[in-house]
Amino acid sequence: MSRWHGKVTVTLKPSVNDPQGLAVYEGLKTLGFEEVTSVRVGKHIDVILDSPTEEDARRRLAEMCESLLANTIIETYKIEVSKGE
Amino acid sequence: MSRWHGKVTVTLKPSVNDPQGLAVYEGLKTLGFEEVTSVRVGKHIDVILDSPTEEDARRRLAEMCESLLANTIIETYKIEVSKGE
Repeated sequence: MSRWHGKVTVTLKPSVNDPQGLAVYEGLKTLGFEEVTSVRVGKHIDVILDSPTEEDARRRLAEMCESLLANTIIETYKIEVSKGE
Repeated sequence: MSRWHGKVTVTLKPSVNDPQGLAVYEGLKTLGFEEVTSVRVGKHIDVILDSPTEEDARRRLAEMCESLLANTIIETYKIEVSKGE
């Protein structure tokens, strides 16, 4: 059994409105960052887990995304796995 | 002037409590993901901006983090820059 570090990035699908991203965009414009053309805000989730192999860790992380970490109707997720400390 | 895609990851400093991460951790345990040992939740922010060079885009993104995107008292941020579409 080894320890793995899963980095999960959950973002809204492009077709979905992002009021939080819009608020950040307006804030940046107010602060003078005129060069910004768009902002989208999502979640970054660090998951530490024990698993026999990297593939198994990746499979379990995908199951976690499908069942809890992402709302797959409106969000997509990306998984990176590296050796945990 | 070119278009750049900034990927900003904002995470709580290790010493800072993460109630959201704890709630996700409990949820995963309830769903049977016994192998999870810890969960930390942060923000993933996609910023599209125009800038003459990648270095300038990176510098401006850091300024955005320092002034709005991250609360540097309790959070740290990581910036990746790639060519925008």
